[in-house]
Amino acid sequence: MSYYKHHVFFCTNLREDGRPCCQRFGAQAMRDYAKKRCKDLGLAAPGKVRINTAGCMDRCAEGPVVVVYPEGTWYTYVDQEDIDEIIDEHLLNGRVVERLRI
Amino acid sequence: MSYYKHHVFFCTNLREDGRPCCQRFGAQAMRDYAKKRCKDLGLAAPGKVRINTAGCMDRCAEGPVVVVYPEGTWYTYVDQEDIDEIIDEHLLNGRVVERLRI
Repeated sequence: MSYYKHHVFFCTNLREDGRPCCQRFGAQAMRDYAKKRCKDLGLAAPGKVRINTAGCMDRCAEGPVVVVYPEGTWYTYVDQEDIDEIIDEHLLNGRVVERLRI
Repeated sequence: MSYYKHHVFFCTNLREDGRPCCQRFGAQAMRDYAKKRCKDLGLAAPGKVRINTAGCMDRCAEGPVVVVYPEGTWYTYVDQEDIDEIIDEHLLNGRVVERLRI
């Protein structure tokens, strides 16, 4: 069994040269929001959920990206509502959010 | 099938208050070493291996830590020889390195 049931990595990489990067879409703020909301829901613990930042995961053109392991499900998102849907559907109920999947 | 066959996250978090943290053990340098070695081996590509940095993964007392997904295998390491063993055994041959597992 996985140490975390769902281990979530937000790419928060910033490219300074103008090429596409997740941080240009507010990735750090979205990660912070997800981390706080998971904590508020009592999900932040071994056996449950961990929300992490990560460096560039090399899917920049499809970003901003987040990946959920061990499932290996990749998502993109636009706003907090998308993050809420990933939390409510995937992290709480184990259902992949197909409309955000990449 | 997972976008990366092995997606590896090195915690490179630095705590400034003296508590244990992975960065105190040279985590960033080890991640850089692993990334370069995987690139040199031709492993750095979709369907193969991705080496990433990550923020604190909250296993600080067991650190420095690295996790390999989608397997969910957690390792600690001391030096480049340990990193080489994880690359040669796990990433190249799919064999868990039990002596480094946490």
